[in-house]
Amino acid sequence: MEKINLAEKFDRIDAYWDPRIACELNSQHVKLVKFKGPFVWHHHENEDELFFVVKGRFNMEFRDRTEIVNENELIVVPRGVEHRPVADEEVWVMLFEPASTLNTGNIENDLTKKNLDLI
Amino acid sequence: MEKINLAEKFDRIDAYWDPRIACELNSQHVKLVKFKGPFVWHHHENEDELFFVVKGRFNMEFRDRTEIVNENELIVVPRGVEHRPVADEEVWVMLFEPASTLNTGNIENDLTKKNLDLI
Repeated sequence: MEKINLAEKFDRIDAYWDPRIACELNSQHVKLVKFKGPFVWHHHENEDELFFVVKGRFNMEFRDRTEIVNENELIVVPRGVEHRPVADEEVWVMLFEPASTLNTGNIENDLTKKNLDLI
Repeated sequence: MEKINLAEKFDRIDAYWDPRIACELNSQHVKLVKFKGPFVWHHHENEDELFFVVKGRFNMEFRDRTEIVNENELIVVPRGVEHRPVADEEVWVMLFEPASTLNTGNIENDLTKKNLDLI
């Protein structure tokens, strides 16, 4: 029940596309991640995924369009929908999603992160 | 899959302690609410509750201590834990909690809000 200061947490993250767990509640995780550059196209079979921009902005690419998500904006990507986040500059993102969610969804490659650490 | 701008949504909220649903995912709700003044002491039997401060600050009172939650900070109140948010000035709060969550938890009074509207 200690409060969590996002800036303090993000200051400790020194790698891109490397999500850390800020807290868990109701079998959901709040994750903090820095994006920079393009991620991999993927979808999540069973999980909806919320992206909230704490600092900066990024493009959420869908197969048929792109949504620009700015600071203090959020977007929900429903399960099954292919997406690819792309960030021209560093962006700080808070994710809300089930604890079961794998960052690269249906894809496993060198961007895949398992057994995430608490931050 | 439209993005949600928090400031635009909050600008439409004209009452305190009147949560609106911003979106639903994984049977969870993201709610937006403006706090001002003291709420009611309560707990949630089955739901953990996340409070994220978008603008302003408030005091989360527990029976044995108070946590000051500032802008860009969050706090999770586990199920069963009595709490009371108190805001000296208007504060904009984003909640993340199961769709089943009633704002006043185990208490029903004139602050209780059911059948929340989308915003």
